[in-house]
Amino acid sequence: VTVYLVGAGPGDPTLITAKGLDLIRSCDVLVYDVLVSPELVDEAPTDALRVSRENVDQAVINALLVDLGQRGLEIVRLKGGDPFIFGRGGEEALALAAADVPFEVVPGVSALSAVPASAGIPITHRGVSAQVTLVSGHSAKGDELDYAHLAKTPGTLVVFMGVMHLPQIAARLIEHGKDSSTPAAVISRGTHSDSESVSGALHEIGQLAADLSSPALLVVGDVVAVGTQLAPALLAAGTISAR
Amino acid sequence: VTVYLVGAGPGDPTLITAKGLDLIRSCDVLVYDVLVSPELVDEAPTDALRVSRENVDQAVINALLVDLGQRGLEIVRLKGGDPFIFGRGGEEALALAAADVPFEVVPGVSALSAVPASAGIPITHRGVSAQVTLVSGHSAKGDELDYAHLAKTPGTLVVFMGVMHLPQIAARLIEHGKDSSTPAAVISRGTHSDSESVSGALHEIGQLAADLSSPALLVVGDVVAVGTQLAPALLAAGTISAR
Repeated sequence: VTVYLVGAGPGDPTLITAKGLDLIRSCDVLVYDVLVSPELVDEAPTDALRVSRENVDQAVINALLVDLGQRGLEIVRLKGGDPFIFGRGGEEALALAAADVPFEVVPGVSALSAVPASAGIPITHRGVSAQVTLVSGHSAKGDELDYAHLAKTPGTLVVFMGVMHLPQIAARLIEHGKDSSTPAAVISRGTHSDSESVSGALHEIGQLAADLSSPALLVVGDVVAVGTQLAPALLAAGTISAR
Repeated sequence: VTVYLVGAGPGDPTLITAKGLDLIRSCDVLVYDVLVSPELVDEAPTDALRVSRENVDQAVINALLVDLGQRGLEIVRLKGGDPFIFGRGGEEALALAAADVPFEVVPGVSALSAVPASAGIPITHRGVSAQVTLVSGHSAKGDELDYAHLAKTPGTLVVFMGVMHLPQIAARLIEHGKDSSTPAAVISRGTHSDSESVSGALHEIGQLAADLSSPALLVVGDVVAVGTQLAPALLAAGTISAR
């Protein structure tokens, strides 16, 4: 194998997999996303080539991975979260496959569960939620989302998003029939030491979260109430830092 | 902190988090699920107390964690996948919180993305799927699932299940309007070295997967076709063993 598409996990550098960390420590080249912790970038060998993904088009990254891979170097492509959950890992994999460059996907802990957990919220809970729906809300209009269907979906809804899109997302869910009193939480920079979170009813969550920074994650559903029960104990133990 | 609820990851022992592995290596007591790899259990200190969860009621485990936690021992409660995705971690957390035992949740790589990835399937893919729905199909009748709604849900559907329930789950989705030609895949024991997978149209997936063993994961949606494109390259590179 020459190219490893590795998930860096949700933010906290200790949440990378043991396998991913070993690969970083022995790579020739590390190509990393902006959101990846500097601590993980520092784990690469001193003489490894480090390439930041910042301000580089996806097509250029694909071509770079193919080119470096064809030279037989050991390359770690380090991506935030999991490479195959909104990580565009599939596109990089297709480019590598088309060029006959051997590669492997090394999954990572996704923000999906880890970020709600950092605020005490389990995304499933017996008797409360047995279904999880994950979408991305990164466009201003949110036109890519089927709000009519989402508003009627049972269980827990998790939205990866920028905070600026939150008021519109919440408003559209309510407009399409979601109960405006549904418990909701927004966690900003979850699992990082400067994480912040707020919770409240869906109709007020946009206002409550107005001062939080991106990236953020929205959780909508009754599991948020389980988190409200757990958070005081976790805060007292010092094992979560989110508000 | 005395009790750590740790996700062991999807099966392959190298996919535990660096933090989780460190905690196992220094614990006094390891309480572990049946599905956790023996390699991870072996990482605990020689003199650590090992308790298998096998054949023990959830209420007994909750009480055991509280009791051990109150003695101030460092306890790792090691759970398959992620503690907060169908892991009943929330119930254990509530029991610990009620007893004022300090605890922490250490997330793990969920089968949700890692198991499809082990067969080359990205659960999201640009232009193909921007939504993921996760449910559990462990009851024979599957009465807990809202098939009418699921059949109309866009994007990727992932079902954690026993193989014996698969024919009924596929049939009910079709009965409620899901296109019977929708690409589907079943991955058995994904990320383990003895993993197997099959893919085909939804109407035939039950028959194709009849010989696979549990636990298994069903993926339904057009991302399965992306996996079909990627699988030959991954098999040639020897980086997936599925099928």
